[in-house]
Amino acid sequence: MPSYKAPVEDALFLLNDVFHLDRYGNLPGFADASADLVEAVLREAARFSEEVLTPLNRVGDREGCKRHDDGSVSTPAGFKDAYDQLVAGGWIGISAPQEFGGQGLPGTLTEIVNEFFCSANMAFAMYPGLTQGAIAALLTHAAPELKARYLPKMVEGAWTGTMNLTEPHCGTDLGLLRTKAVPQGDGSYKITGTKIFISAGEHDLSGNIVHLVLARIEGAPTGTRGISLFVAPKFLVGEDGAPGARNGVVCGSIEEKMGIHGNATCVMNFDGAVGWLVGEENRGLNAMFTMMNEARLGVGVQGLALSEVAYQNAAAYAKERLQGRAISGVKYPDKPADPIVVHPDIRRALMTMRAFNEAGRALVMWTALKGDVARRSGDEKERRSADDHMGLLTPVIKGVLTDGGFNNAVAAQQIFGGHGYIAEHGMEQFVRDARIAMIYEGANGIQALDLVGRKLPKDGGRALMAFFNEVQGYLKERVDSDGLNGYLKPLGQSLAHLQQASMWFMNNAMAKPDNAGAGAYDYMQLFGLVALGYMWARIAEAALAKADDAVMKGKLVTARFFMERMLPETATHLARIQAGAASTMELPDEAF
Amino acid sequence: MPSYKAPVEDALFLLNDVFHLDRYGNLPGFADASADLVEAVLREAARFSEEVLTPLNRVGDREGCKRHDDGSVSTPAGFKDAYDQLVAGGWIGISAPQEFGGQGLPGTLTEIVNEFFCSANMAFAMYPGLTQGAIAALLTHAAPELKARYLPKMVEGAWTGTMNLTEPHCGTDLGLLRTKAVPQGDGSYKITGTKIFISAGEHDLSGNIVHLVLARIEGAPTGTRGISLFVAPKFLVGEDGAPGARNGVVCGSIEEKMGIHGNATCVMNFDGAVGWLVGEENRGLNAMFTMMNEARLGVGVQGLALSEVAYQNAAAYAKERLQGRAISGVKYPDKPADPIVVHPDIRRALMTMRAFNEAGRALVMWTALKGDVARRSGDEKERRSADDHMGLLTPVIKGVLTDGGFNNAVAAQQIFGGHGYIAEHGMEQFVRDARIAMIYEGANGIQALDLVGRKLPKDGGRALMAFFNEVQGYLKERVDSDGLNGYLKPLGQSLAHLQQASMWFMNNAMAKPDNAGAGAYDYMQLFGLVALGYMWARIAEAALAKADDAVMKGKLVTARFFMERMLPETATHLARIQAGAASTMELPDEAF
Repeated sequence: MPSYKAPVEDALFLLNDVFHLDRYGNLPGFADASADLVEAVLREAARFSEEVLTPLNRVGDREGCKRHDDGSVSTPAGFKDAYDQLVAGGWIGISAPQEFGGQGLPGTLTEIVNEFFCSANMAFAMYPGLTQGAIAALLTHAAPELKARYLPKMVEGAWTGTMNLTEPHCGTDLGLLRTKAVPQGDGSYKITGTKIFISAGEHDLSGNIVHLVLARIEGAPTGTRGISLFVAPKFLVGEDGAPGARNGVVCGSIEEKMGIHGNATCVMNFDGAVGWLVGEENRGLNAMFTMMNEARLGVGVQGLALSEVAYQNAAAYAKERLQGRAISGVKYPDKPADPIVVHPDIRRALMTMRAFNEAGRALVMWTALKGDVARRSGDEKERRSADDHMGLLTPVIKGVLTDGGFNNAVAAQQIFGGHGYIAEHGMEQFVRDARIAMIYEGANGIQALDLVGRKLPKDGGRALMAFFNEVQGYLKERVDSDGLNGYLKPLGQSLAHLQQASMWFMNNAMAKPDNAGAGAYDYMQLFGLVALGYMWARIAEAALAKADDAVMKGKLVTARFFMERMLPETATHLARIQAGAASTMELPDEAF
Repeated sequence: MPSYKAPVEDALFLLNDVFHLDRYGNLPGFADASADLVEAVLREAARFSEEVLTPLNRVGDREGCKRHDDGSVSTPAGFKDAYDQLVAGGWIGISAPQEFGGQGLPGTLTEIVNEFFCSANMAFAMYPGLTQGAIAALLTHAAPELKARYLPKMVEGAWTGTMNLTEPHCGTDLGLLRTKAVPQGDGSYKITGTKIFISAGEHDLSGNIVHLVLARIEGAPTGTRGISLFVAPKFLVGEDGAPGARNGVVCGSIEEKMGIHGNATCVMNFDGAVGWLVGEENRGLNAMFTMMNEARLGVGVQGLALSEVAYQNAAAYAKERLQGRAISGVKYPDKPADPIVVHPDIRRALMTMRAFNEAGRALVMWTALKGDVARRSGDEKERRSADDHMGLLTPVIKGVLTDGGFNNAVAAQQIFGGHGYIAEHGMEQFVRDARIAMIYEGANGIQALDLVGRKLPKDGGRALMAFFNEVQGYLKERVDSDGLNGYLKPLGQSLAHLQQASMWFMNNAMAKPDNAGAGAYDYMQLFGLVALGYMWARIAEAALAKADDAVMKGKLVTARFFMERMLPETATHLARIQAGAASTMELPDEAF
């Protein structure tokens, strides 16, 4: 069975030494987040992940969820008990506003804690994760009485949340959606339609399930401008705030799927379910996007989380499995063979994962901190610039961390050889679980289009320019730093590749948008490499400033590995982008 | 449910127009392989794959194999009937010698047919595939009486074969193996030990199962020089040639694994099983390598096969699924949305698969033809050079086609969005099935080491020089060909990268072998890209010479796509190789 140890020290190093959490004391909630408190929170999250959630990961995969004839759904053995402990620990609301029962701590802390939870048990962590997304949407868009009715219970975890977007014939293209909402004259609507792929749509963990649903109000325009967002709970909530009569929404079936078996992926049938409008009429997509941005960052964290736990298990196996002798000479003469960690090709795989994980964690943290600034700062300019960063980096984090997370789970499985292919070691589960993160919350190809088609040109490229200025400014200030120079030069080169790619789009995609579409995926990957490279530069700088211990030395070696072995890919991405769309688009549709 | 149409036309184009099968008429068996006969064989193989094997693919995945208390194993419903049809069609022995009941046709035909079978149903195709590998080992190494006893039944398919190498504590490092063989004085041995991960180890398809087993004769040296190969059938064969008493070998359990559920992956317990030596004492690894080379080419074919069937289904879905509108303007105004095949990012994925599949098929065919020359030519020099090619290209084909096959199955699944993650469409099964091909018959990291550590330096680099001369000679002869020039220039550049990488190893790996180990994987990928690029050049040349129809035009566009979008990766691989081993190897083992 796989094991897991939450990377608390690494998170603290990033928070304190790289991002200097103490400099954010002016933001509401940050003053409470003293170094001691943060450490205590992370240590307790680690304990819960390692002791409670990890042992349930394989159980969840093997048992899966079961739908009964009455439409109710049972989660795997142990999930309910673990969920109760999660609620008792107050984990869902650590960053939620105090007025709704939350602790008001930085959202950044939630992202770190969620990484631990997902590493330990992704299918389980999705239940509170979806609730947090629903809380975010209600906080931003719901009327005060809806907030008062739902948020305290959701922040507590007594009730969970869901997102109901996809229908059988539409996922990416929500403009096609058919679910209908008919006004009842009393402020409520009756919602009818079928939603599919609804994670945590039905289960036995919480006293109520608060569904956020996209639907079209009778008579609304077709397309995306006629979609509204509703809240429709499983149990209608009475005047006393307690769940009462059953609403007209049931789980029709559970999907049989590749992984995340511990999470119930439901077909949800809305049959005149009573719901209330969240935000304005026909502005539902807008409201949903708030939720989706939070959710996309969260899905990026899932990619990182799976990569981390897969790495840990592969590293442990590589030190234990004896096979062959080092090509540079016997390393463990007292053993019948050397552990495979001595082989360069095994190291290549381990170092690749490690270089991805440590910088990926930094990238999430950096962006989560910007999220806190965007939500909490009193300074409008500061908020706007943080929001620019979030908008730009969210698709990159979602796309690049989930692609990389999956690839690393595959690479970690590979280190186990045939033992990775059988269920026993749990490595193949990581691969199956990690796979979904590339698909949901907008398939990664959609993230790439969002980045290139929406986020780059937005506000005249303001967000992109700010990113370039930050990295370039960082490089310029340190150009004469002897210790850092080796790390900075490759980053400067890759930044130039990103700038050339951006320029190429400006010159070639206006007249021919296919040139943007055909290069979007490579651009996202190229952007991700530069962002991770920038994180490595900052990590290396912090590591050089700290004591010369084994951990910090490890950081410096890994930074070099990243610069020498991973960053050079930016050249290939640039070449592909500059090749343009011609050969990609030339064949007629029927040639496929 | 996924569908499949065997690429018969493409195989015929490659055989006739690119590789000119008719020029091989001097080889035994090739004169019989007239264009008409070859086409008839491929069309019948296609029919069998499409109509019989494809419908059983999902059944096999869902039902899997079942072990009963007596150690017997049932295959999924329909497998036995399909196997009987396979035997009746004479498919296993189409390339086997006529003296043992085969048809003596080119081995190349077997590879093409196996691609079709694996696309349709990989788990099923492994049963005859392993038999073919066992036939190859017996043909080359067994004494005449063993050949006479086993080969006719195996060639017919009445009996199947297995390879028993791996033990719980050793797979890659067979020097550690513990299974013992005790001579009985009558020419036979009693074999005792446990073998794991034995594909097709026990099942209900055939009247007997012929196990090839690696074991150590009592008193033999430790390490790889004390290993011998034995044949130990499930049922001992009487004087009359019929299966008689049960031998001391049973299936102890079936592994629960990620995919290929239709194939029984067994723990095989040998408990004094009677076996006979194949080849010389203590030279078992050598004998097994014959089988492994055939098997490795066959596993490469599996990668190609999964990529092909995954591509076909993704292409069909992309033409059918309506979602969004083309960024260059509405393409299907009569539909509520455009089919996703209009989107550049979907095309990018489809073109990548296609460019891989068509060149991968060519690479397999080119190498299989060399295999036929190596086995059948009367000219020693010709045999030697063909054998050099096989030795050099086998690890490349195994490693690169299985990595690419898996990546393409993942990319094809991605095109289905959420529908790719659920079992219904069969796409996630392709991913799970394709995954094993990167692991078995030598994990791909081992292929890379075989290539760099063994195949490059062998005979003073003779095989590598011959490969360079062939590609370089090809380019030089066509340097002034206007039509081809656009394809040849990028290939010339990537060939230069491969030559630089080879030179770098020569200069840097002698003194420090870790430099070879750390760069081996990238070298294998770089080699694969150059080999596929060479195939695209030859395909483009043949396409230009043919009629200007849609298929040939498709080849030319795909060739351009490969050159512009896939080949540029060679630069990154070269950069990684030239970075050397320092950052990869610097951390102490305990840092992981």
